[in-house]
Amino acid sequence: MQNSEEEKFRARRLEITDKGKGFIELLQQLSVCDSVSDKEFEDRFGEIESLGDDHVICVIEDEISGKIIATGSVFIEKKFLRNCGKVGHVEDVVVDSSARGKQLGKKVINFLTDHARCVGCYKVILDCSVENKVFYEKCGFKQKEVQMAMYFV
Amino acid sequence: MQNSEEEKFRARRLEITDKGKGFIELLQQLSVCDSVSDKEFEDRFGEIESLGDDHVICVIEDEISGKIIATGSVFIEKKFLRNCGKVGHVEDVVVDSSARGKQLGKKVINFLTDHARCVGCYKVILDCSVENKVFYEKCGFKQKEVQMAMYFV
Repeated sequence: MQNSEEEKFRARRLEITDKGKGFIELLQQLSVCDSVSDKEFEDRFGEIESLGDDHVICVIEDEISGKIIATGSVFIEKKFLRNCGKVGHVEDVVVDSSARGKQLGKKVINFLTDHARCVGCYKVILDCSVENKVFYEKCGFKQKEVQMAMYFV
Repeated sequence: MQNSEEEKFRARRLEITDKGKGFIELLQQLSVCDSVSDKEFEDRFGEIESLGDDHVICVIEDEISGKIIATGSVFIEKKFLRNCGKVGHVEDVVVDSSARGKQLGKKVINFLTDHARCVGCYKVILDCSVENKVFYEKCGFKQKEVQMAMYFV
């Protein structure tokens, strides 16, 4: 049976072997990230994995090249508000520059929002640049507030 | 020695007995929150407490009335980006309507940002309404991106 496009670009959870498949290099397309040692990667991977369904990193691997070409993460905040509600926070969404136009970003977002819905979140939120607003609107998001930031370094 | 204003309005971590001091009623001034049972409160308190320094809720108690009059939370996201960096996410900041003008909001924000800095975050972020932008600017924040949200309920 032939691999359909759907199967070729399957969203799944990050695995510890994904470091060797260009996961960090992909993140470098999004923001500052020097090379991460195997030890540092394994330690952080373990910290995130210990949170189980409360912090999930999604990746899409190109089955042909064996490279990670899209990623995004969601972590679950537990509140007292909204009758002890939960909120999904989406972070660090990026699609490899050579793999744009294949709807991989949408696939990552769907994976993350489905996960948040499944674990009982009443909403999912994220921050994005004004340029990326239209993409997230197509994914079903609506603009809400403004993001403020304080940098220590 | 007389209680100074500073001591009267001391920021500290949420304690399990704060439910009886109007903590939930204070949150109701911010957003939808029906009454929370003691069992629900204790369960959620335990879940948050189990995260240790990675999810901290700050409160200010009015020592005279014994009521919680200000609160805010910060949770720590662990990333691979920024050389396995950490980001503090500030949420659910509210000051009792009868206690405005005493700089309690600033005190809560300072407590939360100090905590984030101490645990090694490279930045702290939050989302706020356009009306509250000036307050956060006074606290040292700068406007960055736009917040997008998807509601499930």
